[in-house]
Amino acid sequence: MPLPAKVRLVEVGPRDGLQNEAQPISVADKVRLVDDLTDAGLSYVEVGSFVSPKWVPQMAGSAEVFAGIRQQPGVTYAALAPNMRGFEDALAARVKEVAVFAAASEAFSQRNINCSISESLQRFVPIMEAARQHGVRVRGYVSCVLGCPYEGEVDAAQVAAVARELYEMGCYEVSLGDTIGTGTPGATRHLFNVVGAQVPRPHLAGHFHDTYGQALANVYASLLEGINVFDSSVAGLGGCPYAKGASGNVASEDMVYMLQGLGIDTGIDLERLIAAGQRISAVLGRATGSRVARARNAC
Amino acid sequence: MPLPAKVRLVEVGPRDGLQNEAQPISVADKVRLVDDLTDAGLSYVEVGSFVSPKWVPQMAGSAEVFAGIRQQPGVTYAALAPNMRGFEDALAARVKEVAVFAAASEAFSQRNINCSISESLQRFVPIMEAARQHGVRVRGYVSCVLGCPYEGEVDAAQVAAVARELYEMGCYEVSLGDTIGTGTPGATRHLFNVVGAQVPRPHLAGHFHDTYGQALANVYASLLEGINVFDSSVAGLGGCPYAKGASGNVASEDMVYMLQGLGIDTGIDLERLIAAGQRISAVLGRATGSRVARARNAC
Repeated sequence: MPLPAKVRLVEVGPRDGLQNEAQPISVADKVRLVDDLTDAGLSYVEVGSFVSPKWVPQMAGSAEVFAGIRQQPGVTYAALAPNMRGFEDALAARVKEVAVFAAASEAFSQRNINCSISESLQRFVPIMEAARQHGVRVRGYVSCVLGCPYEGEVDAAQVAAVARELYEMGCYEVSLGDTIGTGTPGATRHLFNVVGAQVPRPHLAGHFHDTYGQALANVYASLLEGINVFDSSVAGLGGCPYAKGASGNVASEDMVYMLQGLGIDTGIDLERLIAAGQRISAVLGRATGSRVARARNAC
Repeated sequence: MPLPAKVRLVEVGPRDGLQNEAQPISVADKVRLVDDLTDAGLSYVEVGSFVSPKWVPQMAGSAEVFAGIRQQPGVTYAALAPNMRGFEDALAARVKEVAVFAAASEAFSQRNINCSISESLQRFVPIMEAARQHGVRVRGYVSCVLGCPYEGEVDAAQVAAVARELYEMGCYEVSLGDTIGTGTPGATRHLFNVVGAQVPRPHLAGHFHDTYGQALANVYASLLEGINVFDSSVAGLGGCPYAKGASGNVASEDMVYMLQGLGIDTGIDLERLIAAGQRISAVLGRATGSRVARARNAC
């Protein structure tokens, strides 16, 4: 299979990234981050999450962030809406695309969202229905697709079953997340083969964490399987909530660098992306998690 | 092409790694490192370098290190011997395998070893001859195979010409080094295709730096091209001499983790390898460069 000619990056730094940083940042800094990212050419940014600020203080002010950003034509600005209340808040903030997430592991589902996989999928039914009524698109996430912090190995068939349910429920795309970053390229290819038999590959995306340094190898393995949508986080924002000091989301800069080297069109200006990452890293007072950014700034 | 069933790792931490660390360490610490590595199952360790300690203080005492290590059967203990004087010193230390290195870029050759590529190859002729006489095996390195800090892009045909000369001169294996870590998987596959037409693939090895986070993706790309020998450095020792604070050699731990995930036999005990990396990182007073080690120790 030839490599895809184009890849679409789903930038999750402002949501998945910032949500897992210890320090909440201001609405103004979030707005600046999102605008920096779209100025760099990102066509999809997950901007925030409509959850209780009591539970996730890092995501407080998501409505204000949506109101503050310069919404550019052709760019998708999405929000996580884990329940109906969150969906309604997203709707009130004029969000046009939301994301929902389920786990591929029962133990993770129970500990992370306090219900079974099947119960979590049931909760999405009214969201999907309301989304259809309001012309809002819904993207689905499946977590723990290549391993679970509580169960260890996760069966690809189980991932496929959850992904298929989300797809049949109306998610136009399902992103498969290696939440703990334990996956390796062979397992990644096997996963897309198994899930790809249940959900058409053009509707699948890869979401890799670099906790074990495997993320880009897994992205390359996914490209070889024809996958052409990947989630990533500028400056590697997010770290790994399960391993202190370890890496989390793969850095967008490192992903773009590899894709450019492969001759794959992303529409992204790497230098501006690096600058966006440097700025948010400074706000957080942390070193960038992007190796490309570190190498460039050291030169 | 199916993936190789076995991979041999060439551990370069004690030489390529320590040589690029700011702080020289004691002979006793070097001996301990080499013994730790072979106890972990490494079958090939580059132990030191026979160069003037005036120029490379980090490599002082290499003869003492060779005298101090527990030489285990079936393990290759190699040394860098950049010139005839170094080769004679290696011989006196009863070294059975040496390495020589040339660059694929003229500018790098001039700036790094102060002579043209062709002159550097000429210098190896008497070493190769003496090595044959004394039954010493010689491994060749080619640096800057996927980019040069001075010239930028490097032609794969140029790499192939240098690799072929080293092979025809008598190097039983030629390791292709992405010295500045700018290579990406497509360029890596192209490289092995071009060089593989001049030197049989079983006599080629890959040496990747993680400066831009691409090393493991490049290793996976190389495996897909049938390459089954890779250089790596425990704890990512070495950093990147061309980019302060950036990564250098790919960490052996991260490599072994990926290979194990791919079901490829390396003969290495990952837990003992991680322990060896933690110990030497403590000696150097630096954080490990291995993401696997960081993730494991955070759990």
